[in-house]
Amino acid sequence: MVKYDRALDATFQALADPTRRAIVAALARGQASVTQLARPHRMSLPAVMKHLRVLEKAGLVTQKKFGRTRRCRLAARPLKKAEAWISQYRGFWETQFDSLDRYLAQQPTEVPEWPKNNSPQKQR
Amino acid sequence: MVKYDRALDATFQALADPTRRAIVAALARGQASVTQLARPHRMSLPAVMKHLRVLEKAGLVTQKKFGRTRRCRLAARPLKKAEAWISQYRGFWETQFDSLDRYLAQQPTEVPEWPKNNSPQKQR
Repeated sequence: MVKYDRALDATFQALADPTRRAIVAALARGQASVTQLARPHRMSLPAVMKHLRVLEKAGLVTQKKFGRTRRCRLAARPLKKAEAWISQYRGFWETQFDSLDRYLAQQPTEVPEWPKNNSPQKQR
Repeated sequence: MVKYDRALDATFQALADPTRRAIVAALARGQASVTQLARPHRMSLPAVMKHLRVLEKAGLVTQKKFGRTRRCRLAARPLKKAEAWISQYRGFWETQFDSLDRYLAQQPTEVPEWPKNNSPQKQR
């Protein structure tokens, strides 16, 4: 049977969007207001706030109101679990890279000389 | 400006579903047919194939036809990039845990004795 982990669902879902990943990166440099976060994306405030809600639901961002502005802050803790999940498979991608390395090591290192008027591929 | 990385979008999107994560986990134990993958999820074959297409599009699964069956195989390479992205923020969650550790270290280690008939929380 499958063990469901809704927290992991929410973390990966939150990270599956480039704007949301950029917001995480921006907040890693320090707290920011919604307006400051919206600026580099040339997005409307409501659009950025929608992304912030997804990040907040995933526990990756906390928001606090100071008067009329909201300060957003990175809460990186859910990333630990996401990293741990992915890391289980490190052996697989390392093996895949090792196989490629081994294959490349077995290939001749010198560039073969092609007959002058018989190029194997047409130059475009 | 935001640098878009569609490959990361696809990887995180693929991992944002518990059935797809379970398929990755199953394929880490070895190649499998679609029928074998469907069994623990009590799902229809078309439903599992839909998940497999998402994983395939993200480059996490490869499928090969052998006669009338399809063998699926894990292609873990995209996970390397996803792990690298998350790992950038390891400093943040480690700091958060460190702060918690420091806080707990400052607390008295002995369990305080509550007055016998004045329990601080109701037992349920």
